[in-house]
Amino acid sequence: MKQPSLYWRIVLVRPRNPLNIGAAARAMANFGFRELVVVKPYDPVWQETRSAVGAEEIVRSARAAETLREAIGETTLVIGTTSGSRRTFDRELIPLQELPAWLRPRVRGHRRAALLFGSEKTGLSNEHLSSCHALVRIPTVPNCPSMNLGQAVAVCCYELARARAVAARPPTSRAFLSDPADLQALEHVFERAARVLDAVGYLKPKSRAATIVKLRRLLFDLSLTNNDVRILGGVLAQIEWKLRIQASEH
Amino acid sequence: MKQPSLYWRIVLVRPRNPLNIGAAARAMANFGFRELVVVKPYDPVWQETRSAVGAEEIVRSARAAETLREAIGETTLVIGTTSGSRRTFDRELIPLQELPAWLRPRVRGHRRAALLFGSEKTGLSNEHLSSCHALVRIPTVPNCPSMNLGQAVAVCCYELARARAVAARPPTSRAFLSDPADLQALEHVFERAARVLDAVGYLKPKSRAATIVKLRRLLFDLSLTNNDVRILGGVLAQIEWKLRIQASEH
Repeated sequence: MKQPSLYWRIVLVRPRNPLNIGAAARAMANFGFRELVVVKPYDPVWQETRSAVGAEEIVRSARAAETLREAIGETTLVIGTTSGSRRTFDRELIPLQELPAWLRPRVRGHRRAALLFGSEKTGLSNEHLSSCHALVRIPTVPNCPSMNLGQAVAVCCYELARARAVAARPPTSRAFLSDPADLQALEHVFERAARVLDAVGYLKPKSRAATIVKLRRLLFDLSLTNNDVRILGGVLAQIEWKLRIQASEH
Repeated sequence: MKQPSLYWRIVLVRPRNPLNIGAAARAMANFGFRELVVVKPYDPVWQETRSAVGAEEIVRSARAAETLREAIGETTLVIGTTSGSRRTFDRELIPLQELPAWLRPRVRGHRRAALLFGSEKTGLSNEHLSSCHALVRIPTVPNCPSMNLGQAVAVCCYELARARAVAARPPTSRAFLSDPADLQALEHVFERAARVLDAVGYLKPKSRAATIVKLRRLLFDLSLTNNDVRILGGVLAQIEWKLRIQASEH
């Protein structure tokens, strides 16, 4: 059985050590990955990232993004990485060695995927994690769970390359106009939903942040298509319009 | 089926960058490895190797060795790592992802194994490689084969931990007094053999070095037991004695 292939983007969220960006790029190059996006690099960090042996091309074409959303915009499958040491999440942690098997039945219409790595000190925040479809745990030992960032990227790239779950070329633009909803569209519709829920008083000030995270996760877990998202967006727009009309009537 | 476990020693041969020793130690700690030996560290490198996050214990107990032979002395199975890019060897290169399966039928009496990493610039020399029972190739892509040292250690430790081919504790001294010949005994008997071959004129000055490498490899590939080595040593001693007698008779 042929393993379906994804075109992966590696996303580093707020890395602090400039050496780690180059180290990540080199590990990517070693295993045939090409796309690197760095979210909110501290300016000096970004300036200091010069060449990485054998990975000059990746570093040169790496992109800096202001937000995670901007970084993962047109991908349709987002996987976060964690050492699993910090806290227990109420979602499944896929052991890295099982990621290829986990991907196999789920790849279907997906073409572009993003693999997220948090900053050296704090990892990915709960908000970042809530944008992920699944979380992967590198099977480190309990008494030394936290990996060096470049080494974590190396191990993950190795595991994906090992299973030949990596596409050599980016998909053509047509390919990702197809079924699964892209992250940008999902985030957009979620914002609209949040506005509506605020307007109807569903979100209470005290629990607002936690509820937002929960609802966003729910929305992301639904595997919506772009068509689903368009319909949902239409429904929400209609509700918003109705609420404004009623507000003006009173 | 239970995967037999080996107690692994990680051996870095002449690393040049002190950061890489710490990085290797950290990767080892992440995946439950403990024994680090560094062959001929450049003095300033060794001095600069201070702490590695979470791996202080490994760095503290790491040992510096003058020669590779001293570094792998009492291990009975030695695996070298290579990117496979430099030259073709006339021996099999085991892809890293197949190492656990390769080890399974061979582990038997082995308890202590060493995994060797060459220096950042040159990798392992032919002489180092001739002390190895097998060579492992990390499956990097052809256009960027050479890995960062710390990342190479991370990926190899991950693969071994992934297959649970790692013993948590060093074997007791009795365990490795058993069958397979240790490297020190093999080297010792090989030196004796070389003396004999020199004495009988088998080794020609021009091809001596190459022949030595070939013969040593042959000897190491035989999977001799300590008992075999003792017998072979006895035979060689007898030949040496006879040659000396004859020489004095003429």
